[in-house]
Amino acid sequence: MAPPSALDPAIADRLRRDPAGLVAAVVQQYGSGEVLMLAWMNDEALHRTLTTGRATYWSRSRQEYWVKGATSGNVQHVRSVALDCDGDALLVTVDQTGPACHTGTRTCFTGRELPVTAPGQDQPS
Amino acid sequence: MAPPSALDPAIADRLRRDPAGLVAAVVQQYGSGEVLMLAWMNDEALHRTLTTGRATYWSRSRQEYWVKGATSGNVQHVRSVALDCDGDALLVTVDQTGPACHTGTRTCFTGRELPVTAPGQDQPS
Repeated sequence: MAPPSALDPAIADRLRRDPAGLVAAVVQQYGSGEVLMLAWMNDEALHRTLTTGRATYWSRSRQEYWVKGATSGNVQHVRSVALDCDGDALLVTVDQTGPACHTGTRTCFTGRELPVTAPGQDQPS
Repeated sequence: MAPPSALDPAIADRLRRDPAGLVAAVVQQYGSGEVLMLAWMNDEALHRTLTTGRATYWSRSRQEYWVKGATSGNVQHVRSVALDCDGDALLVTVDQTGPACHTGTRTCFTGRELPVTAPGQDQPS
């Protein structure tokens, strides 16, 4: 479960967390609209993001807070945060310094397309 | 766990699923770049999305497959699908018919901003 947090209770009440206490955070470049990455936040990561203006996540693999860019320098300055209609996802718009992906690509999705094989996929059926 | 699926094993091998067998699917409008919603896919939902060209998700609340727009008419025609660097998130670009959100708003994030209270949030520090 999520550790204690200073997150505004009015916001905390709106979160619908997964069994690990997390909500998904979709990270989008302000202006261009590029989707940079997907990360995870617990209450405290959201609190820190809202109050510091630096995108802060919960690392599921390392089980620790992770200020994006703290080691790489590729920081994210937060422009806005919105919570979706059912409370399980955040949309975080940022100004991304450098590449968003730890592999060095601009986004974590760059060059990683899967084949869509539907016949006539561009034609409504 | 996820039910059996016809998903290409080469793709299935790249998925890093949560304990419920799911990956997050970020859904983005082709062209405008709007982030419309976040949903969830298991292997079979991804297989159906890739092979039918109609965005298909797994409903965590109803525990069933869900072809977006099947009841509302607000379908999503799939333009592309990409898997992120660590295999736990998909970026699905679509042509959205009508509003994406069941509440009637264009996206599930529309009008749901949280306050960012960081001092000088637009100024790199």
